[in-house]
Amino acid sequence: MVGVKLPVLDHGHVMLVDYMGSDTRVEEVARLSYNTGGLTGGGTSTNDEKGRTLRDTRGLLRYLLRHAHTSPFEQVCVTLDMKMPIFVARQLVRHRTQKLNEVSARYSVLPEEFYVPDLSQVCVQSDTNKQGRGEVLPLEVGEAVRENIKQHSENGFRLYRDLLERGVARETARMVLSLNTYTHWCTTWDAHNLLHMLRLRLDPHAQWEVREYARVISEIVRVWLPLTWEAFTDYTLQSVRLSRHEWEVLVQSLDREQVARLLSLGESGGSEKLSLREKREFLARLDTVSSPPFSREE
Amino acid sequence: MVGVKLPVLDHGHVMLVDYMGSDTRVEEVARLSYNTGGLTGGGTSTNDEKGRTLRDTRGLLRYLLRHAHTSPFEQVCVTLDMKMPIFVARQLVRHRTQKLNEVSARYSVLPEEFYVPDLSQVCVQSDTNKQGRGEVLPLEVGEAVRENIKQHSENGFRLYRDLLERGVARETARMVLSLNTYTHWCTTWDAHNLLHMLRLRLDPHAQWEVREYARVISEIVRVWLPLTWEAFTDYTLQSVRLSRHEWEVLVQSLDREQVARLLSLGESGGSEKLSLREKREFLARLDTVSSPPFSREE
Amino acid sequence: MVGVKLPVLDHGHVMLVDYMGSDTRVEEVARLSYNTGGLTGGGTSTNDEKGRTLRDTRGLLRYLLRHAHTSPFEQVCVTLDMKMPIFVARQLVRHRTQKLNEVSARYSVLPEEFYVPDLSQVCVQSDTNKQGRGEVLPLEVGEAVRENIKQHSENGFRLYRDLLERGVARETARMVLSLNTYTHWCTTWDAHNLLHMLRLRLDPHAQWEVREYARVISEIVRVWLPLTWEAFTDYTLQSVRLSRHEWEVLVQSLDREQVARLLSLGESGGSEKLSLREKREFLARLDTVSSPPFSREE
Amino acid sequence: MVGVKLPVLDHGHVMLVDYMGSDTRVEEVARLSYNTGGLTGGGTSTNDEKGRTLRDTRGLLRYLLRHAHTSPFEQVCVTLDMKMPIFVARQLVRHRTQKLNEVSARYSVLPEEFYVPDLSQVCVQSDTNKQGRGEVLPLEVGEAVRENIKQHSENGFRLYRDLLERGVARETARMVLSLNTYTHWCTTWDAHNLLHMLRLRLDPHAQWEVREYARVISEIVRVWLPLTWEAFTDYTLQSVRLSRHEWEVLVQSLDREQVARLLSLGESGGSEKLSLREKREFLARLDTVSSPPFSREE
Repeated sequence: MVGVKLPVLDHGHVMLVDYMGSDTRVEEVARLSYNTGGLTGGGTSTNDEKGRTLRDTRGLLRYLLRHAHTSPFEQVCVTLDMKMPIFVARQLVRHRTQKLNEVSARYSVLPEEFYVPDLSQVCVQSDTNKQGRGEVLPLEVGEAVRENIKQHSENGFRLYRDLLERGVARETARMVLSLNTYTHWCTTWDAHNLLHMLRLRLDPHAQWEVREYARVISEIVRVWLPLTWEAFTDYTLQSVRLSRHEWEVLVQSLDREQVARLLSLGESGGSEKLSLREKREFLARLDTVSSPPFSREE
Repeated sequence: MVGVKLPVLDHGHVMLVDYMGSDTRVEEVARLSYNTGGLTGGGTSTNDEKGRTLRDTRGLLRYLLRHAHTSPFEQVCVTLDMKMPIFVARQLVRHRTQKLNEVSARYSVLPEEFYVPDLSQVCVQSDTNKQGRGEVLPLEVGEAVRENIKQHSENGFRLYRDLLERGVARETARMVLSLNTYTHWCTTWDAHNLLHMLRLRLDPHAQWEVREYARVISEIVRVWLPLTWEAFTDYTLQSVRLSRHEWEVLVQSLDREQVARLLSLGESGGSEKLSLREKREFLARLDTVSSPPFSREE
Repeated sequence: MVGVKLPVLDHGHVMLVDYMGSDTRVEEVARLSYNTGGLTGGGTSTNDEKGRTLRDTRGLLRYLLRHAHTSPFEQVCVTLDMKMPIFVARQLVRHRTQKLNEVSARYSVLPEEFYVPDLSQVCVQSDTNKQGRGEVLPLEVGEAVRENIKQHSENGFRLYRDLLERGVARETARMVLSLNTYTHWCTTWDAHNLLHMLRLRLDPHAQWEVREYARVISEIVRVWLPLTWEAFTDYTLQSVRLSRHEWEVLVQSLDREQVARLLSLGESGGSEKLSLREKREFLARLDTVSSPPFSREE
Repeated sequence: MVGVKLPVLDHGHVMLVDYMGSDTRVEEVARLSYNTGGLTGGGTSTNDEKGRTLRDTRGLLRYLLRHAHTSPFEQVCVTLDMKMPIFVARQLVRHRTQKLNEVSARYSVLPEEFYVPDLSQVCVQSDTNKQGRGEVLPLEVGEAVRENIKQHSENGFRLYRDLLERGVARETARMVLSLNTYTHWCTTWDAHNLLHMLRLRLDPHAQWEVREYARVISEIVRVWLPLTWEAFTDYTLQSVRLSRHEWEVLVQSLDREQVARLLSLGESGGSEKLSLREKREFLARLDTVSSPPFSREE
């Protein structure tokens, strides 16, 4: 997958440049903390040689993410080459944990590449989501909007080139380009911070264009760290956080027999999605209405 | 509260040195993002002058923490002076987001101060918690343990002073001191990262001695940022995170009428802990078994 | 100075919102490390009460910056409210050590404010500086350039409002605005990282518009931390770094007697800019052609 | 070199676990910023294929470090496995830019391994360096000191095991171990922050034991990034920083003809260490007594 430009939007891409580490490396780093194993290096050793199995690795990674032990995921990293509209870059740059080198319009002339949203993405302002979009606009309105955006962007690039020809400094001329102009950067992330960014940017409240980049990066992570991605999906991405009050209401509204039936503790044919250990932990939580950790000490 | 040493353990303390910002500042920073208000500065303006109320501030702070919009909490900060055993310092230093200046045993001679656990904290290794402690040991064992720790620590300080008297460099002599020796530092935190540290260190799985420091720092935060602390308690500290599979089991085991009764939607006398908006959001979540955000788009 | 908007460029500003700590706090934090003093808190104590003088504080701060002991400067911080063109914001956001909350054009409609460079800043591309500007363009060219930039920016805002009126979502409509549109943010810095940013952004190679913001922020720091600013000027901002080879050439080309004369060691009437201690350190360096630190151990 | 434990001190080591990127990757990332090249990925392409030479790479890397353009060096990284005394770990942990996972003495029992300084490192407190050591102590004193340290450390481990046998929790028992006990961690660094740490920890003012770790890590970097290491040595490690006042004295004490002779501008047989471009830049600096960048604008 290294070196392949995965297309995003009309002119953008995400390309995997390089990566270091794997699901197994994360496991080894965690085992160093617990002193139940250690690091070898170079990725030459395999689980088999160590008498551990894929099932062990999977179980440990799930344990780590379930209990928010995220530091081992910081020790593997990935470098991506990305091209995206400036308004997308402006959102992504806020994740201060990435390393970043972006093309400079002070050093070089930007190529005429700008984003025009597809008709399916020319939508009305959402009523319910103050920062988002709602229904698609009627076809003829959408087409007019696309045409307007395209023409204004072309005008911007025409003026940009014109200013450069009149001798104006690049750093000054570029200020007339609009926020849909494409920019280009190289970025390095550790897996923990990359997953954190993906959780925020895959959220339906994120702008659609940013989610598109998050979606394609997710596909890269799924191939690079398949067991980590699976655990991340179950314990973070699709997890549900309930406030203290919501939890109190839920716990008082449960049909305990139905819970037990669904968990089918110890029986065959039951839910295979939760491990025995997770089922026990889950039932124990139902019996404890949460309370502030330090109140117990007072 | 500034300048008062709050005691922790047998010789330690936490002292509030200074702070910048308040609940209101967090609100103002958030309103700048939404363009529904702005910053004044100096803490001179009050809510009243702006036609906003304590209730507005409280509502906004709760909204921010409920939706994990944490960046405004990074713009207020606090400086603490702390004295703690080195093994506690070694755990706290891992939070890389704090600013830290610690006394150097290369520059100066450390005073003879070391931690000896109280009898109530001389406990057996926990069976269930691999990293924690269980029941208190019998009185006579506990007393012997305390005496052993005390004597060995005193021996360490005796050798330390002896080495110094023989002319050995401070940086070499200090290596015989044990991990229960007290150290001293000054640390500055922004509120978001401080709360994150507190959540981890107030957890019952954290070592008891570290939890003691977290407890005392929490008391400072409760006075400094009362509305933030309240929201943090409800939406983070005492919140419950359920995995995808746990949530599926729960949603299928709910007595919906009981939920409605407990929420007492629109009626007086109902739960006053959840705002109307939160109740609506909560009910909506019950009807959606979570699914990966981007699968909806495919 | 708190709460005053200092104007920058045609529509921008920098406003001091709040600060924590002072030159004296930096000194106190450093003395804690050396165990030669400690923290009090609240800024109530003064140097006089501690038997220290302004001269002591000044001397210690200069020592810290001369020897790159920068961590005490991280324990004081400042919050600024800034309005600047997006292309300036895009450069400043790269300093990942600041806390940042920016107005969101997804939540609210941006006011029609854009930057048009003054005639004195409409310059040609520099020949010698690939990323900078050179001579001012002839008056009539400059006026035409300004007019073109102004008209294109107005066209952008006209289209922006038009798209909004047709119902297009804010997050989509804003992409037609150009990079000279003003944005607005609140930012918190610790002094060490702020000074580091200023050093880079006051450099003549930085874009003039960014330097203008750095210049105004410098004025705030000069008032807030006068002794720190003085030491920073002498030991960092106006310091000179020489490579190994440059230093070898210089040391072999010195008139030692002239150096001694200029330093006027021990005499009255000599240079008062270097302390006696600095003079000694300086002379010692001239006698040692630098070599790799660890080669000495081999 | 991957997977080889390089010994440090009496029981420690540094082992290269993995790395990502190379000198060429740093060059590619920098060229992306200047838009004069780009990323390929996977390290498959070579300079030859791109028509660039080793000389080009070397020149660009030297340019980057000479002008403190350090961000491209953040995009390559390295993972190390290290074993070191706790007092060394306590110093290294302060570099907050590394990723770190350390063995936990709450989870597992530490093996009896502690550091006893070699006779050549049992030294007196330095008179001139408040934080360092001076001359070696007489042989019989040194031997006694070593024996004392060894016995006290053994006593600590005996008590540690004894407490564990009596059932005391691991997290409590470990507090009697002394600061020379070995700990073990896995750490990931980007090259920029690793070089920054090395510059500080190779300094003669750093504690000798820490310098030993820095020295061994330097050997790894020299093999991994040979051109980067060479440029770092010339422009950072062995560079000299002069304050404003020192520079003023130097510039007024130079024999300009001697400088020109040593540089041998344009002639054969001259200094080959400075490129023509560097010579020009150097001479230009001699003619400008530095002044505050923004004073020119006032």
